[in-house]
Amino acid sequence: MSLKFPRVALVGKYHESVTGNPVESTLELVAEIGDFLAAQGCQVNLEERTAAITGLARFSSLDVPGIGAECDLCVVVGGDGTMLGVGRQLACYGTPLIGINQGRLGFITDIPLGEYREVLPRMLAGAFEEDHRALMHGRVMRGGACVFETFAMNDVVVNRGAASGMVELRVEVDGHFVANHRADGIIVATPTGSTAYALSAGGPLLHPLLPGWALVPIAPHTLSNRPIVLADPVEIAIEIVAGRDANASFDMQSVTSLHHGDRIIVRRSEFRVRFLHPRGWNYFDTLRAKLHWNEGGV
Amino acid sequence: MSLKFPRVALVGKYHESVTGNPVESTLELVAEIGDFLAAQGCQVNLEERTAAITGLARFSSLDVPGIGAECDLCVVVGGDGTMLGVGRQLACYGTPLIGINQGRLGFITDIPLGEYREVLPRMLAGAFEEDHRALMHGRVMRGGACVFETFAMNDVVVNRGAASGMVELRVEVDGHFVANHRADGIIVATPTGSTAYALSAGGPLLHPLLPGWALVPIAPHTLSNRPIVLADPVEIAIEIVAGRDANASFDMQSVTSLHHGDRIIVRRSEFRVRFLHPRGWNYFDTLRAKLHWNEGGV
Amino acid sequence: MSLKFPRVALVGKYHESVTGNPVESTLELVAEIGDFLAAQGCQVNLEERTAAITGLARFSSLDVPGIGAECDLCVVVGGDGTMLGVGRQLACYGTPLIGINQGRLGFITDIPLGEYREVLPRMLAGAFEEDHRALMHGRVMRGGACVFETFAMNDVVVNRGAASGMVELRVEVDGHFVANHRADGIIVATPTGSTAYALSAGGPLLHPLLPGWALVPIAPHTLSNRPIVLADPVEIAIEIVAGRDANASFDMQSVTSLHHGDRIIVRRSEFRVRFLHPRGWNYFDTLRAKLHWNEGGV
Amino acid sequence: MSLKFPRVALVGKYHESVTGNPVESTLELVAEIGDFLAAQGCQVNLEERTAAITGLARFSSLDVPGIGAECDLCVVVGGDGTMLGVGRQLACYGTPLIGINQGRLGFITDIPLGEYREVLPRMLAGAFEEDHRALMHGRVMRGGACVFETFAMNDVVVNRGAASGMVELRVEVDGHFVANHRADGIIVATPTGSTAYALSAGGPLLHPLLPGWALVPIAPHTLSNRPIVLADPVEIAIEIVAGRDANASFDMQSVTSLHHGDRIIVRRSEFRVRFLHPRGWNYFDTLRAKLHWNEGGV
Repeated sequence: MSLKFPRVALVGKYHESVTGNPVESTLELVAEIGDFLAAQGCQVNLEERTAAITGLARFSSLDVPGIGAECDLCVVVGGDGTMLGVGRQLACYGTPLIGINQGRLGFITDIPLGEYREVLPRMLAGAFEEDHRALMHGRVMRGGACVFETFAMNDVVVNRGAASGMVELRVEVDGHFVANHRADGIIVATPTGSTAYALSAGGPLLHPLLPGWALVPIAPHTLSNRPIVLADPVEIAIEIVAGRDANASFDMQSVTSLHHGDRIIVRRSEFRVRFLHPRGWNYFDTLRAKLHWNEGGV
Repeated sequence: MSLKFPRVALVGKYHESVTGNPVESTLELVAEIGDFLAAQGCQVNLEERTAAITGLARFSSLDVPGIGAECDLCVVVGGDGTMLGVGRQLACYGTPLIGINQGRLGFITDIPLGEYREVLPRMLAGAFEEDHRALMHGRVMRGGACVFETFAMNDVVVNRGAASGMVELRVEVDGHFVANHRADGIIVATPTGSTAYALSAGGPLLHPLLPGWALVPIAPHTLSNRPIVLADPVEIAIEIVAGRDANASFDMQSVTSLHHGDRIIVRRSEFRVRFLHPRGWNYFDTLRAKLHWNEGGV
Repeated sequence: MSLKFPRVALVGKYHESVTGNPVESTLELVAEIGDFLAAQGCQVNLEERTAAITGLARFSSLDVPGIGAECDLCVVVGGDGTMLGVGRQLACYGTPLIGINQGRLGFITDIPLGEYREVLPRMLAGAFEEDHRALMHGRVMRGGACVFETFAMNDVVVNRGAASGMVELRVEVDGHFVANHRADGIIVATPTGSTAYALSAGGPLLHPLLPGWALVPIAPHTLSNRPIVLADPVEIAIEIVAGRDANASFDMQSVTSLHHGDRIIVRRSEFRVRFLHPRGWNYFDTLRAKLHWNEGGV
Repeated sequence: MSLKFPRVALVGKYHESVTGNPVESTLELVAEIGDFLAAQGCQVNLEERTAAITGLARFSSLDVPGIGAECDLCVVVGGDGTMLGVGRQLACYGTPLIGINQGRLGFITDIPLGEYREVLPRMLAGAFEEDHRALMHGRVMRGGACVFETFAMNDVVVNRGAASGMVELRVEVDGHFVANHRADGIIVATPTGSTAYALSAGGPLLHPLLPGWALVPIAPHTLSNRPIVLADPVEIAIEIVAGRDANASFDMQSVTSLHHGDRIIVRRSEFRVRFLHPRGWNYFDTLRAKLHWNEGGV
């Protein structure tokens, strides 16, 4: 039988927890899953940091561009954070990702560690659901020049310094003035990011198929400054008008000490991230499980 | 010069306020604006109820289907409510609408009474912004049969009886189970409706260009039952699972005393409503004015 | 040893669920707990409705005023609803209540069925925490006359009819005009009621020791109409200004079809309800368990 | 006629705006109001910073303890910020304060500049409403030692660093564990502070007579972590459990770079701040004006 994904990359958890023995557990897991994939007939490559952390020598290693160029699939063992980090980098190659969650169920890493032996073979054989996620391209412009540029899968956050008062942020959409927000900050979230920080700040859930961003003010001074959902072809500009020590974060990658007049520009990337889920997967099932709906609680 | 809109229908305010002398003021306004339009070279027709209320005989009258069939433009004098009512009925004909607000600025009736003499001639000459709004088609299904069917521009609301406790509503999207909501009710709102009841219930603002609906629970028992924004090609089904005296409203047109098992089905209509605004109009300007942003207040 | 509570009343669940065999289960439970209390040396009386539902003849029965007059303690087997109903009626007698929860943990019925044999003897011996809850006295005034009057432990709710639009409610506190609220309604909640409907409508949690009420608008038209917490010696008046089919509910006891001009008056009752909890009980433990805090979830 | 307030202190705006010519305008205002008070028969003293900023030599100057010791009244010309700063320092002396708002209406500085000539004489003659505000005493404890201590009239805020992720904060009330909050931070607000930052973060309004604090999480990870209102005799402890660069602010006076294990302790001060308002003043009138209720808007 011809394999649907002959060359598979394997990525372990990036951010180790401070307690326990994460390196060893990651080593064992990666070795075990790598062997399993090899036994399915896949040619297995370790992502280079994963190779370095685990020290596993029986698989060859590739950096992320190498994975993008040479692999048909990327299997991630870890949490949503690792998945997002790798997904963001692989988007431009179109490489699909499968996530095995090491701890508790994630929004996107939805195969429990205890079930991969059952689930993966079926997915390798082509039984999966594709789930494409929009990607944002963010820039920081200062005096006409771009001083920072990156992709973000979850959100772009512009916020105040810790010990400072509010920032004042001028928001424009496609060149039209929207509002001057005085607030702790503003979040621009993708559907993927709508279940993360934006949700805590009062934003709505956005279905992954919705071609839109949520613009969510954080603790806005004006009570009618409610979250807005915009169609995602737009270009959003957020300008620092007032406030000290403002900061911009793109999926937690931060640019600190922004100047007045700096503009954070967010637009939709031409790329999308491709997640694969087990056959029968549905977004609402994950949402229900993660948000503890229908558990009879308050 | 050839007119862009040779045949124009004119509609006055439907719902009269209880105080003052609304009939007379509507009479005068409609007469005045009708004469003005005629002076611009338009052939003016009164909508039949407007003709009946005002008693104006110098213009011929048409019912709404007649307006759809014979007129190139419909000018509405009143508030957002009148505009929505007429717009919903004209959607299937593609007739564009212009709104003159009799009282305070509306979200869609944005030409102040004092400015129509300046603004209308330019719009009649082709200087306008088109603003297409999505329309929902709603049905109530009982035992497999459709017992009610209509269009809605703002929202479909399923809610509990006044003196009853919560309802329990099963929500499905494209046949997938989303959640059983125990709440006062649920609102399905279009972008147009996102600034109406849904906003009061905690829903997000949706830009008119966003192809999505907001699903907003009203006072949900489960605190994580947050508003969700769905891509609008979906079909949403809301089933009455428990609760007495549940009620469904489609832009305030109500079906009362729903049965357990009744299903309210909402999908996107193939039609859109066409609003025309003065050249330079922008949605965010209206939002900012209506929500009192940037007024220095709390 | 002298008993701290020689005469004990026993109350079973009032509102039976529609499935299962509630009467029988209540019969068995009440019989079992009654026998247990008798074995501890208490003289046991059944509340008269409980006696009627269960048909148990081996205990004498008393109506609620009789319990108030003759018993030193009232043990309730059921849920928070039953506990609130009995507590409201016993407040004027000062009779303390203990709640055994038949199903899942309640906010106030906090002894699991499986643990009462261990917990009750210690409480009967005096090892308990007292938890006093404020009680509201509510009235409906029409043309100067009181047309309805009752106590409420959770909340007084004034709301719109199911198929009607918003109501307009004029709120006064101690005779001072607060605001005209256009909304689905308004909730006046005690600390006990702050974890019920008011929480769903966006109200804050109020600690039971706080001498205050929360005034929580339901889906208010004006976004800055936020919940207010008032010191509880105040008298709150809510007048129906506009809207059809308005309704007032006092712990779910409803007065329907209110007239314009009707005034709902809420003030603090001179009575308090006395709940007894197992030694070591703390309000925050219950809150944490009921609201699923610190479970690692979203 | 004997004067009710023979010795009056006068304080000008502390924080000058960056534009315009604030020093000059403050100079003129302070001189004008000082002369007016002197003409009413009061002995006028300038607060020493006000004297330094304005350079006015015709009134003697006093530092704040001097004002507390020697003056019967303190008149503040400025905004709520200045009023709070002075009020906090005068609380221990019991000196009452009157606020004249230089710009727009404040929550506590409620005499418009244009009306003081009419209003002040009546107040000096005894026609006023007293409005006592609770004060918090806050400390930062590190390894058993107090490293910072101050009073706060509005709020105590513990929050995360600007470019850091969430903080984890352990909250205890009177030694009882409440919850571990993962959030941007937590606000403890007095009734006075409930209309400031806490309101933006989703907290309720607290009436000034309510003896309670609001504990308001900022963008909490767990959606059921709702604001809680506590009776104010309690002692609240907030411990930094996790997160980098956490920060504590007491009415904007900040302690940065908190350590894990640091505890912020908040309790009610024995002192209260005394504000005087024109006869007929009512809190709800101010609330309605400041929050733009009943303006017909959204």
